[in-house]
Amino acid sequence: MTEFRLDPKLDSDCFTLGKMQISQLLLMNNALAPWFILVPEVEAAELYQLDNDIQQQILAEINQLSEFITQEYITDKLNVAAIGNIVNQLHIHIVGRTKSDFCWPNVVWGADQKKTYSDQEVKNITRKLKNSLATFTVLETYT
Amino acid sequence: MTEFRLDPKLDSDCFTLGKMQISQLLLMNNALAPWFILVPEVEAAELYQLDNDIQQQILAEINQLSEFITQEYITDKLNVAAIGNIVNQLHIHIVGRTKSDFCWPNVVWGADQKKTYSDQEVKNITRKLKNSLATFTVLETYT
Repeated sequence: MTEFRLDPKLDSDCFTLGKMQISQLLLMNNALAPWFILVPEVEAAELYQLDNDIQQQILAEINQLSEFITQEYITDKLNVAAIGNIVNQLHIHIVGRTKSDFCWPNVVWGADQKKTYSDQEVKNITRKLKNSLATFTVLETYT
Repeated sequence: MTEFRLDPKLDSDCFTLGKMQISQLLLMNNALAPWFILVPEVEAAELYQLDNDIQQQILAEINQLSEFITQEYITDKLNVAAIGNIVNQLHIHIVGRTKSDFCWPNVVWGADQKKTYSDQEVKNITRKLKNSLATFTVLETYT
């Protein structure tokens, strides 16, 4: 198996906060919504192509992130999606949405508006993730 | 438990083709992409709120539909998403996408272009689903 490499576009659009059991955990650099991305360290581009045990790990991670977002943010709805039209590498968006957010009720994908995070904001989010998620390991950059 | 009722907007936008193990299987009435929707007959609006055994059934249905779409259509990517900003009732989109389709690489949600299916086309798709999916029961309308 070749070494896993994060897609360059994901790398430039997001902060790579750390690692869950099987996925890298990214934060989209757009403070207009709590927008997290799981990137399973696998070669397949589609969820259905993965072995059951890998799917189970990803499902568990989605559940953990979903609970985290609804606990830490005010949300009316979660948007959970594996799209991959622009970045082929398998990645799952988990986005907390509110009825007053920047593009409600439209989807965030393709919406132009953006507000970058400060370093301190990213560190705060990372700390909260570390306190909430048992299987999350923080990258040194964000400790 | 109250009787499950399909959301009126899903009902008007889609054909309800039949029933999987836990979900109703819908076809979006837009022939510009193979666009299926699973509507689990549950009350929760979010996947993470469901018991593990229900999640497993939904995951199995997503896998079956994903395989069906990639076998029956030419696709470059699957888009699998639980959004629910407009229709709150839990529903999972599974859409086969190609690089030459009507809105690539954008997402289908919010795209305006539309081509309705003929009755015969819907019946053909339903027949293929029946031949491919072990747990699929066709609604009488489409036999």
